[in-house]
Amino acid sequence: MPDTINPQVIGFGQCCLDILGQTSSYPELDQKAELNSLLVQGGGPVGTALVTLSRLGVPVTMVGAVGDDEFGRQIREGLLNEGVDCTYLAQSSGASSQVAFISVDDDGHRNIFWHRGTASPVVPKSFQAILSNSIRILHLDGLHLEATIAAAEMARSLDVITVLDAGTLRPGMERLLPLIDHLVVSEKFARQTNDDLEVALKQLADYGAQAITITLGKSGSLSRSTDGQTFSQPAFKVDAIDTTGCGDVFHGGYIFGLLQGWPLPQTVRFASACAALKTRALGGRTAIPALQEVENYLRDQTNEST
Amino acid sequence: MPDTINPQVIGFGQCCLDILGQTSSYPELDQKAELNSLLVQGGGPVGTALVTLSRLGVPVTMVGAVGDDEFGRQIREGLLNEGVDCTYLAQSSGASSQVAFISVDDDGHRNIFWHRGTASPVVPKSFQAILSNSIRILHLDGLHLEATIAAAEMARSLDVITVLDAGTLRPGMERLLPLIDHLVVSEKFARQTNDDLEVALKQLADYGAQAITITLGKSGSLSRSTDGQTFSQPAFKVDAIDTTGCGDVFHGGYIFGLLQGWPLPQTVRFASACAALKTRALGGRTAIPALQEVENYLRDQTNEST
Repeated sequence: MPDTINPQVIGFGQCCLDILGQTSSYPELDQKAELNSLLVQGGGPVGTALVTLSRLGVPVTMVGAVGDDEFGRQIREGLLNEGVDCTYLAQSSGASSQVAFISVDDDGHRNIFWHRGTASPVVPKSFQAILSNSIRILHLDGLHLEATIAAAEMARSLDVITVLDAGTLRPGMERLLPLIDHLVVSEKFARQTNDDLEVALKQLADYGAQAITITLGKSGSLSRSTDGQTFSQPAFKVDAIDTTGCGDVFHGGYIFGLLQGWPLPQTVRFASACAALKTRALGGRTAIPALQEVENYLRDQTNEST
Repeated sequence: MPDTINPQVIGFGQCCLDILGQTSSYPELDQKAELNSLLVQGGGPVGTALVTLSRLGVPVTMVGAVGDDEFGRQIREGLLNEGVDCTYLAQSSGASSQVAFISVDDDGHRNIFWHRGTASPVVPKSFQAILSNSIRILHLDGLHLEATIAAAEMARSLDVITVLDAGTLRPGMERLLPLIDHLVVSEKFARQTNDDLEVALKQLADYGAQAITITLGKSGSLSRSTDGQTFSQPAFKVDAIDTTGCGDVFHGGYIFGLLQGWPLPQTVRFASACAALKTRALGGRTAIPALQEVENYLRDQTNEST
């Protein structure tokens, strides 16, 4: 990786509208819960990772699809307000947008009700030209598998680095994994591979990624680098108000580290700090930090531990 | 009540935006559920009762408030599309609209997460003129208590019939109840009064309403008329897809009966049929019947039982 880069990232995948409600406690079956507060905000794995990069100062482009509905309009507006280029965010005629209702209770428990919508991202005809236009990294999630594979194949043919956010191991994903350079997966995904996470790391490494990280929420993360070394990054201690989007923000921070050419432990530590700072407010994006905030936070953490 | 009336109803109270999602099963704490379908539709006790009356052919006016947000725009549009006059539906500057996320599972279980919003209905300066303009009935719910009491007092002074939809017994409601002519309450409200429903009916009657009905879901309803007689109306047997708004639609049907001058048992039977037909589709309003549908349905039920 050269020292001087022109950092640009394309995201290809999900963007969503999150409707977040705070309850005192999650209601039992057949019960009502009055929400103390309500927030409507853009979300989705790739969408929120790109917003993170944008707040960190990286120019980013979203390739995806929304429906021609009110939710789609709000999703696009949310991305544009964050400086995410939406030139290739399609509006699918007659289709519905992805939307999620997220219940967050006073003890930090979170329930997500989500509808994938009928708008699916497709690889645009101009994708090769977009990728070739000084793009360094393609960030993907796995929901719309065939289109994601097509996008990853094109990236590979152009030597564009691929990063995958994988939350659930779905049938057919074994065709996508060999096309990925950096695999950053949920604990659920890893355990679907093997319940022993060290073994899961090794099995996932066999697909060829140069680095694999499993995010473990409060337990931090577990990573394996090209040389087969594994290491843990503890989570930073935070009084979390809302963990929605923590994984997505981790990906944004991770990609930022890749763009800097940092060693994997530094990249993962930076990503972990971004995710920790994110939890300070309700909403997947509200408290995503700017670069200076992350740098200050990491410096303070280092000082405290010395 | 005269035989010939000019049927007009004012509703004063809640209108809401419902976001309904169908799940295979309601998720456990900290779990995700993918929604099989999603529907965004206007709702709320008074709002949906007025829509019912409008579908039955009765001209109606909504007095209430929405926020100056996207949800408020959709609430108003939903009412206007149903022929509900929204001249007195205020848009409160800087306020948020009432919104509900409703999870409906394959077994008919229903969970409601709702946010009351910050837009509150106020009694407009012209309310006396509106009520005097050949309005026969004022329909109320009890959420915004002080404004509701003010509206009911004005109705009483003008000999306008008042109907109250009471779902939860809240502090201070004892000041509202003496202003009500027709009290149609939820089982929850009745049991908050007295767990013996016959006793609850009697205690509620002491506030002076000429008729009281407790809606009991699948168990139908229990009513008490002016002469102290009580009677049950069984629920019509339906394969319910969604019971959201059943109570609201019952109120609309009930008020329709009042406008016709029907005896209470006929009014309650008609209201019950409206609520039964309503359950045929997802959403509080989707399957609200037109008058001809209710009449046909009731005729078929009568034929079957003979």
